[in-house]
Amino acid sequence: MATRETIEAVLAGAVERARACGEGEPATYIPELANAPLDALSAAITLRDGSIVRAGDDEHRFTFQSSAKLVLLAGLLEERGEDEVFRIVGREPSGGGFASLARLETHGPIPANPLINPGAIALASILEGHLEDRLAWIERWAERLYGDALPIQQRVLASERRTGDRNRSIAHFLKASGVIDGDVDEVLEVYFALCSIEGSVVEASRLAAILATGGLAPRSGERVLSQRTASTVVSIMATCGMYDESGAYLCATGLPAKSGVSGVIVAVATGRGGIAVASPRLNKKGGSVRGHLVLREISRELGWHFALPD
Amino acid sequence: MATRETIEAVLAGAVERARACGEGEPATYIPELANAPLDALSAAITLRDGSIVRAGDDEHRFTFQSSAKLVLLAGLLEERGEDEVFRIVGREPSGGGFASLARLETHGPIPANPLINPGAIALASILEGHLEDRLAWIERWAERLYGDALPIQQRVLASERRTGDRNRSIAHFLKASGVIDGDVDEVLEVYFALCSIEGSVVEASRLAAILATGGLAPRSGERVLSQRTASTVVSIMATCGMYDESGAYLCATGLPAKSGVSGVIVAVATGRGGIAVASPRLNKKGGSVRGHLVLREISRELGWHFALPD
Amino acid sequence: MATRETIEAVLAGAVERARACGEGEPATYIPELANAPLDALSAAITLRDGSIVRAGDDEHRFTFQSSAKLVLLAGLLEERGEDEVFRIVGREPSGGGFASLARLETHGPIPANPLINPGAIALASILEGHLEDRLAWIERWAERLYGDALPIQQRVLASERRTGDRNRSIAHFLKASGVIDGDVDEVLEVYFALCSIEGSVVEASRLAAILATGGLAPRSGERVLSQRTASTVVSIMATCGMYDESGAYLCATGLPAKSGVSGVIVAVATGRGGIAVASPRLNKKGGSVRGHLVLREISRELGWHFALPD
Amino acid sequence: MATRETIEAVLAGAVERARACGEGEPATYIPELANAPLDALSAAITLRDGSIVRAGDDEHRFTFQSSAKLVLLAGLLEERGEDEVFRIVGREPSGGGFASLARLETHGPIPANPLINPGAIALASILEGHLEDRLAWIERWAERLYGDALPIQQRVLASERRTGDRNRSIAHFLKASGVIDGDVDEVLEVYFALCSIEGSVVEASRLAAILATGGLAPRSGERVLSQRTASTVVSIMATCGMYDESGAYLCATGLPAKSGVSGVIVAVATGRGGIAVASPRLNKKGGSVRGHLVLREISRELGWHFALPD
Repeated sequence: MATRETIEAVLAGAVERARACGEGEPATYIPELANAPLDALSAAITLRDGSIVRAGDDEHRFTFQSSAKLVLLAGLLEERGEDEVFRIVGREPSGGGFASLARLETHGPIPANPLINPGAIALASILEGHLEDRLAWIERWAERLYGDALPIQQRVLASERRTGDRNRSIAHFLKASGVIDGDVDEVLEVYFALCSIEGSVVEASRLAAILATGGLAPRSGERVLSQRTASTVVSIMATCGMYDESGAYLCATGLPAKSGVSGVIVAVATGRGGIAVASPRLNKKGGSVRGHLVLREISRELGWHFALPD
Repeated sequence: MATRETIEAVLAGAVERARACGEGEPATYIPELANAPLDALSAAITLRDGSIVRAGDDEHRFTFQSSAKLVLLAGLLEERGEDEVFRIVGREPSGGGFASLARLETHGPIPANPLINPGAIALASILEGHLEDRLAWIERWAERLYGDALPIQQRVLASERRTGDRNRSIAHFLKASGVIDGDVDEVLEVYFALCSIEGSVVEASRLAAILATGGLAPRSGERVLSQRTASTVVSIMATCGMYDESGAYLCATGLPAKSGVSGVIVAVATGRGGIAVASPRLNKKGGSVRGHLVLREISRELGWHFALPD
Repeated sequence: MATRETIEAVLAGAVERARACGEGEPATYIPELANAPLDALSAAITLRDGSIVRAGDDEHRFTFQSSAKLVLLAGLLEERGEDEVFRIVGREPSGGGFASLARLETHGPIPANPLINPGAIALASILEGHLEDRLAWIERWAERLYGDALPIQQRVLASERRTGDRNRSIAHFLKASGVIDGDVDEVLEVYFALCSIEGSVVEASRLAAILATGGLAPRSGERVLSQRTASTVVSIMATCGMYDESGAYLCATGLPAKSGVSGVIVAVATGRGGIAVASPRLNKKGGSVRGHLVLREISRELGWHFALPD
Repeated sequence: MATRETIEAVLAGAVERARACGEGEPATYIPELANAPLDALSAAITLRDGSIVRAGDDEHRFTFQSSAKLVLLAGLLEERGEDEVFRIVGREPSGGGFASLARLETHGPIPANPLINPGAIALASILEGHLEDRLAWIERWAERLYGDALPIQQRVLASERRTGDRNRSIAHFLKASGVIDGDVDEVLEVYFALCSIEGSVVEASRLAAILATGGLAPRSGERVLSQRTASTVVSIMATCGMYDESGAYLCATGLPAKSGVSGVIVAVATGRGGIAVASPRLNKKGGSVRGHLVLREISRELGWHFALPD
């Protein structure tokens, strides 16, 4: 097991080298995301003992976007159990894009997995109560996993709402197929809010650290998620977390992860800690260019690939 | 880390309980496979130190079928390197069946990954020399990974040849798309021979044990595969090894694996050892019913899920 | 050319024989349609000279549903011309169902043709002005082609709105793809109103008669559509009008047609006249069971197959 | 009805104008086709009375390629009847390319229609007897419909065989799906021979003329095909004959047709006559660029669109 000093040096070096790469463009389909500081780069590792290693731009805050789907999945697995959750979403890689309707039509009706948009929208539909109650559920689980009460970024939320036709199409499709019930607009409101949670790599890495310990809070060691929930979430990250580059990414890093279009990647090093990297420059498949570079270097230098023994 | 005694007890118990399950049918699309003893069940674990734990029907021998695709992949990664291998196959879950042509047409031309039929056929096409040389290459790598010179089962081979129209269709498609060159019948002959390697769970578990140690031979500790090759193969097993139940299987067991239609499953417990289970009764998706049961119990009882810390 | 007496006898006989068939079920996905009188059957032929031959239940009124897509297509071809219309929809059979999104995703962005739901929704989006203006456009063209100011059936309209999630999904998808602009709900309101035009087979057959004469009003002989518009609409009916049984239907009858889920079929016998048949019992592909029977018998007895010379 | 003089003038003018267009490239996937004289252009119309109108390069001979699928379809409909034929192929537009396997996998097992490669290969498989007998069947029906004993072009046949991997893939797929039986290589040999029939536009237009009269031989008036066979073949040409530009082509010309990659188009003007045009320059969808131009002009100038009354 690497010492804290080694981890600090490796992370600092990886961030510095990644900064040299100027490839990739920020997402534009949610217009507000295009306003992110293009060259911001930040990374944090929350270690098993709760200590935090940081590098890069401390002040960089961003919306968690699809990486927040982990909150929804973990919370529902805890409260409702696998049977209920996997009645409305699958656990399989979709083999396609993150917002595909074709697959729903040909392989559906239930979405392939909870980490693509149709899957997260389906899960958002089973939260109960008034819209306020459902938003409160999101806030509560976000606080539990990120360790802090994080705000919903209102400009991004407005941008998601204004340009969310693809997600509206998915939600109405799921309703037409009988997968979801109730008011589609309210379901989407929950989904858009989930994507608009704002924070930094520190909070994001805390969620990953909980997953890396089989469900325990860093520092306190208090159980936040059951082992079963934690291992299920990490398994789905391994197979489905990076959309259609999940396989190549896992080969290269061995760190199960979930990306978001804001450029964040949340990655799990089981038994070691949780990692988050954020940088808005995206590759063609929607993954953070520099995030990939940082995670590859961490994995290689620290020997954190899940398929390599200690 | 569990003691050898614990592992023995867990494996024996798991095999005994799995034997009670009479669900599933043997594969029929390769007629000779239907002649397998329906209720045979055998399992072996090759531990890191080279010791072997066994349970079930010792005499049970079977063809390795698709699980032998691992030999082709590992051997080519060693000899040719990633760049050459991943120029003709991808590393992504296909999101569909193991012999699908539709995906080649819509997402191709290269096959999604090396563990579905199109991927293995594509890889078989880059072996060099006369047909004898290519068969010799297969034998050599099989011996290196399985630890023994294993025979090609001639009746199964004849059955594969006689009924291999789906694979012929795939191979001609790949040739028409420019992915493979040369004589299609010779490529298929290599592929059919690979699937017809015959052995027991002991040899199959040895290959898994090599992958579980990052590439070292059990007992001798000699390096057989580079860390890079081993971790890449295991990563692809994690995302693509169990066809369209890869995701659900990984959640349940956390043991990256590759199945074969003879009912074998070869699974990797990184840092612990390699597991093989064989039983001809298959579920609807082509996975061994009892194999799944045994692996779930091993994972749960020994805490060998990759996403749970020691 | 058959005499009026022959045509009357053939139509009466065909309707009588079709009435004996009790197969098929009314559409249920628009709940209000399920309230249609299950065994109503009516048919009318408007001949070239404007005379009308009728048979069956005179009082049967129904909503025109997808058959009214012809109004939208013909009106836009007249006013905007082919270039503008075929910039946002194709002219090709889709090879799939009438409400498929998969095809939009894989072959899009523009819908395959104007007679499937995505195509008609796309066309509805280019009507101009306030919602009232667009509804007025529909009413104006419906009156011009059906020969009468027909009402919008309000219960059916309400039912379409309440259960229109599949169409909402399509419309948001088209907006997300940049095919349509503007307020999706208003576009759907126009589309739902179009489907809810209510009339009898007499008015429906008049539209078909205009198409059968290359665009002339029955009786008056006044030009309503250009030859170009009429022949284009009939050609698209021939290849795409009966969803995924268009080919088998055309072989059997040789009468290019458009069906609606209320059980209406509007069919064109070029040079002879326009035919409409209505009966709510539908086959598995959404076509009227008795409508098919009546049209097959008319075609055979009168020699009206387009591919047979006089 | 236009006079012979008018038809001659229209055809001569259309051919002259089409000659000015230098767009399009010859097919290259069958290498021998690339050797065709690039600018050859010939056209013929066989009228109802058996007289023939010609224009362009008299000496131009070419292989009939996919246009000869009409021979197979018509002959089998006559000898086996609809029930048997449409048990192994459909009658629906495929909505995709002419050699697609994806559709077989997703909508199969039977091919969508007899005018795409999978459909014609399936039909070729039901010819009976030794290979010689099946080739003799093709020759016999070709002579009956083309009016002459036409040769098989041996260089093209050799080229088809050498490069026919896509068709081999299709044939093995159909065998694997249980659609075809027997020796795949022999089925393909029949199919390749069918595509390699060589002749001129005169013979090709004779087949079309038989279809245009509901099945009667030009001049003699002798019945060659039943009305039922003729109208079924023409209906399938209308919906499926021009691959994925069938719809746009039918709108533009109203002349049901079948194309071949040698650049021939065989088109039917019901009640008037049969047309053939040949020119090797192809558009992106595999249709003859100049063939389209000639047929559009004939249709427009002579008023031969099927959807316009006399």
